[in-house]
Amino acid sequence: MRADFDALAAIGATPAGGVSRPTFGDAHLAARAWFLERARAYGLATRVDAAGNHSAILTAGGPTLLLGSHLDSVPDGGRFDGALGVVAALHVLVALRGSELRCALEAIDFTDEEGTLVGLLGSEALAGTLRPGSLAAPRGGRERLLDGLARAGLREERLPEARRDPASLAGYLELHVEQGPRLARDGLQIGVVTGIVGARSFSLDFRGEAGHGGTTPMDARRDAGLAAAAFAVAANELVLRDFPDCVATVGDLRLEPGAFNVVPGAARLSLEFRSADSALLDALESALSDRALVEADRHGVTVEIEPVGRWEPTELDHDLQAAVERAASALGLRSRRLPSGAGHDAQALAAVTRSAMIFVPSDGGVSHDTREHTSWEACVAGANVLLGTALELAR
Amino acid sequence: MRADFDALAAIGATPAGGVSRPTFGDAHLAARAWFLERARAYGLATRVDAAGNHSAILTAGGPTLLLGSHLDSVPDGGRFDGALGVVAALHVLVALRGSELRCALEAIDFTDEEGTLVGLLGSEALAGTLRPGSLAAPRGGRERLLDGLARAGLREERLPEARRDPASLAGYLELHVEQGPRLARDGLQIGVVTGIVGARSFSLDFRGEAGHGGTTPMDARRDAGLAAAAFAVAANELVLRDFPDCVATVGDLRLEPGAFNVVPGAARLSLEFRSADSALLDALESALSDRALVEADRHGVTVEIEPVGRWEPTELDHDLQAAVERAASALGLRSRRLPSGAGHDAQALAAVTRSAMIFVPSDGGVSHDTREHTSWEACVAGANVLLGTALELAR
Repeated sequence: MRADFDALAAIGATPAGGVSRPTFGDAHLAARAWFLERARAYGLATRVDAAGNHSAILTAGGPTLLLGSHLDSVPDGGRFDGALGVVAALHVLVALRGSELRCALEAIDFTDEEGTLVGLLGSEALAGTLRPGSLAAPRGGRERLLDGLARAGLREERLPEARRDPASLAGYLELHVEQGPRLARDGLQIGVVTGIVGARSFSLDFRGEAGHGGTTPMDARRDAGLAAAAFAVAANELVLRDFPDCVATVGDLRLEPGAFNVVPGAARLSLEFRSADSALLDALESALSDRALVEADRHGVTVEIEPVGRWEPTELDHDLQAAVERAASALGLRSRRLPSGAGHDAQALAAVTRSAMIFVPSDGGVSHDTREHTSWEACVAGANVLLGTALELAR
Repeated sequence: MRADFDALAAIGATPAGGVSRPTFGDAHLAARAWFLERARAYGLATRVDAAGNHSAILTAGGPTLLLGSHLDSVPDGGRFDGALGVVAALHVLVALRGSELRCALEAIDFTDEEGTLVGLLGSEALAGTLRPGSLAAPRGGRERLLDGLARAGLREERLPEARRDPASLAGYLELHVEQGPRLARDGLQIGVVTGIVGARSFSLDFRGEAGHGGTTPMDARRDAGLAAAAFAVAANELVLRDFPDCVATVGDLRLEPGAFNVVPGAARLSLEFRSADSALLDALESALSDRALVEADRHGVTVEIEPVGRWEPTELDHDLQAAVERAASALGLRSRRLPSGAGHDAQALAAVTRSAMIFVPSDGGVSHDTREHTSWEACVAGANVLLGTALELAR
């Protein structure tokens, strides 16, 4: 497994020690080709579906237990995010060759988890939950989506053919790095994921009036940038004080015209917040909207709040969580249950089959960065928990 | 004068009713050619100096009384800023043709007041205060400066030749729109400018750590964007509370990486503040620097504060202020003394000759925008005060 992990990390490797494998770029296509080649070398069957999902298959009678993750990465990302889950899944199949199994095992690399094009493109296509709107107005732009599909030899109109009959599936297991600091901070080896938080994102457009920075008196300004900054500060305080189980991020803020000596007439702010609880998301959305209106009013500007993205919280399967815990415990590993703050293919799969996720610690919680790191010992521990859980389900 | 003003406003006119005449662009060069052509048509001498300053001259014995402003504009600027002062100066000369004068009168259009390239390029060259550093690292970039000079047939190494001997000058008078709301708000017709505020500008680089917006707990973040926003809010409060005679502007704020789901790891903020009082500028600089460090520390990030621009307050000539007041009073116009919050060529001229500025009201204080407007009646009133003041000095 280590040799395969290192070989994979060399594909799209960046000088700083990470990987850059955006969906359907050369490095990503090379990584997928490598995956199929390795599967064949291990004597496994392979398959590529209509959404470009790549699979290695250990055939057996009965339904299929999927084990997977993704080989694409964000630009200048880490070598563990996604790749660990795919390589570990492959090696679970390798380890179980020749075993007596009551279901087929399929190690699957899902297309475009990171959202270079759409996000969860392959897993939602497989689950049959890919919405036409996601393709009509994709995150990465329509042109990039069409170019990417063409590069991969895929056709948009055939994506729905990737859908699997839920009756054909025995479940889904995904090993992934935590991408957060909690396991490392608490000295734990395994995270048993209870669910994936929901997220809502909004663009806030504050509009005031541009003015000369030297000649517009302070009390006569309608400074849209100041209103946006005041909202960012107030939103942070509000979440810390009233919504301890949520996170909220102001990830971007652009001022217009954006010059030293001009009072900003417009400000566009990117807001996202997450929680595992839909009711909390509703309450937070309402509180933040109110706050935006208050800050706009206080600074003599207007604000328009436009929803630009939303996914609901996903609960993962309770029986599988218990199975993961048993597998960890059998290996003498310390585990805890925790929600995932990041989105994963498992949230798409949970719509059609019982699904579980296994987390291993990320040093310092660093993610989507070349400095992302998980010790090899932790990776092996996670792979062994994946193996143990798969064995309990497949035997 | 109205016919000339309207003809000039048609050069580089924008659909929205303003003008776009950035330095040495086609429209700016056309406006300057038009100015020389009009001067010759009125029987005046003309001159273009080594810094590209364009002059119409009513020759006489004795030193030269300069009357001027600028024909360049910001992109999509108004038709009054600069242009009014040049056209009015030209018509003062036209009105005084044949009069008995003890000094020459020169209506001058200064090069690049607005800073497309350097800012106050022509007036500082004439005053001999143009610093080599302004040319080595110009505001608009070195390439744009060299291209522009070439387009205008100017040579960088010859710019110092534009310097005038202070003994050759009898003074400088500039009519300009206020670019602020004070005269209009108070129902006054003439502003007698006491001085031009000093300004200091700084780039503040906040550096924290980028993190996944879903997986990085709120209390484990080092959010550079939040620190910058908190500084913007605190700076505004500080100026309003402790520095009522100053203005401060956060004109730009850029977050990195600038994505919905990433805690900003870096934020670059543009800060500028102004006051007519050097001691207040010192005190405010110190207070704002302290505040930036406090906000950085509170949010677990660092901040580097880099000075990127500075001009000292300029006091205008007391005798000339009184002369402007007499001219306004003789015409039955209501005037008040006030500082200019914006920079002007007069601040360069004040270094070498007694200088004064006459303001006329800007509707709503709007400036550097196509909506900039001053009633024609107010323009004529200002031109008559310019004429009256020039007459008192030149007779």
